[in-house]
Amino acid sequence: MQAQFNFTSIGVIHSCFRQKFGVPRQPGLAPAAKACVELIPPYNVSEALSDLQGISHIWLVFAFHLNRSPKWKPRVRAPRLGGNKSLAVFASRSPYRPNPIGLSVVELLAVEASRLWVSGVDIVDGTPILDIKPYVPYTDAITGASNPIAPQEPQKLSVVFSESALALCRAAPQPELQGLIVQVLSLDPRPQYHAMDNQRIYGISLFDKNIRWKFQSATQIIVLDIQ
Amino acid sequence: MQAQFNFTSIGVIHSCFRQKFGVPRQPGLAPAAKACVELIPPYNVSEALSDLQGISHIWLVFAFHLNRSPKWKPRVRAPRLGGNKSLAVFASRSPYRPNPIGLSVVELLAVEASRLWVSGVDIVDGTPILDIKPYVPYTDAITGASNPIAPQEPQKLSVVFSESALALCRAAPQPELQGLIVQVLSLDPRPQYHAMDNQRIYGISLFDKNIRWKFQSATQIIVLDIQ
Repeated sequence: MQAQFNFTSIGVIHSCFRQKFGVPRQPGLAPAAKACVELIPPYNVSEALSDLQGISHIWLVFAFHLNRSPKWKPRVRAPRLGGNKSLAVFASRSPYRPNPIGLSVVELLAVEASRLWVSGVDIVDGTPILDIKPYVPYTDAITGASNPIAPQEPQKLSVVFSESALALCRAAPQPELQGLIVQVLSLDPRPQYHAMDNQRIYGISLFDKNIRWKFQSATQIIVLDIQ
Repeated sequence: MQAQFNFTSIGVIHSCFRQKFGVPRQPGLAPAAKACVELIPPYNVSEALSDLQGISHIWLVFAFHLNRSPKWKPRVRAPRLGGNKSLAVFASRSPYRPNPIGLSVVELLAVEASRLWVSGVDIVDGTPILDIKPYVPYTDAITGASNPIAPQEPQKLSVVFSESALALCRAAPQPELQGLIVQVLSLDPRPQYHAMDNQRIYGISLFDKNIRWKFQSATQIIVLDIQ
């Protein structure tokens, strides 16, 4: 009964997220997270992309290539539900699924000959892209759809900067760096089993920088420094 | 640069569409088109589906298994734009794409141990399912998204029935048959290169029935008989 399918990557994404840690758990939550989708040969022809000009959003279908476990489980840990709760895999958008296929809608900023510039990504740098599809509002944007497991955007933490971190942000070649750090950290990237540990100093990678931060109170993060 | 990925079907869809001809070109256009997604071993465990209860819509990720051409083209024919116009493949939802992966959002009607009942499908009977994901309204339903190529639902034709066809509809074991025929034919399933030929008698398969119909005027279809 099982059928096998072979797919080949058509492109690769270059994103600000150099590690899985810190990547938002859904697209759109960090609008400052820009990325470039680069088609690879033989797909890198402008005829395959040109008509995307003027379309506001696209679907990226990609492979969760950093999943190292080939075994699937019917239930997965659900960060949004707290660390100890599990969720049916097909009721989740977890990367740990029988076929590790990811699906994210992103805003389309610009169309070049064989590259697309997008924002709002939740995809780690180097992820292989399997397909690009236009967003079709009249079918894809369902008014009145409901999902009690993920009813609304997660609550956001406040994020403040040390003086030195702020100065380094402003000197960085990426003008969006400060906003990006705020958006990413406000989502509380910690694994849930760390949620009780507010003393730890964390690092996340954005572009070529290591951002060190910690909790200052239960609802506020401070960015300590940027290396 | 190209990476290879092997995926295995996790299920199969049983739908009213027994042939490609007549399948709506997008999901949601024929709400009477019900289907059953059946998980296949080893994925047919209720733990993998249970939490879908209460979620209104799901994404089906599937393989366009009836595509026989292994060759991809950067441009595809676009039925919505008229037969002679072509469209960049990544600006289209055409099944003829480098990786023949399909993506449809459908309404979730019921969750059983290893089956899901859905409606609004645009998927042919027997299609292998690669993944099931919950619809997440706050990320997937984008208010204000625009796609000038597919700005709104296609215009619908009117559909009338011969007396004998109507009697057969009402005697059919599927109570939704009449509504389904209206919804499917109102979308004008003809290939665009037939659009000038209003004399031809067509047949489409729904369930185990062959529905014969033709154009009665430029905007009206008559269902002739049901076999």
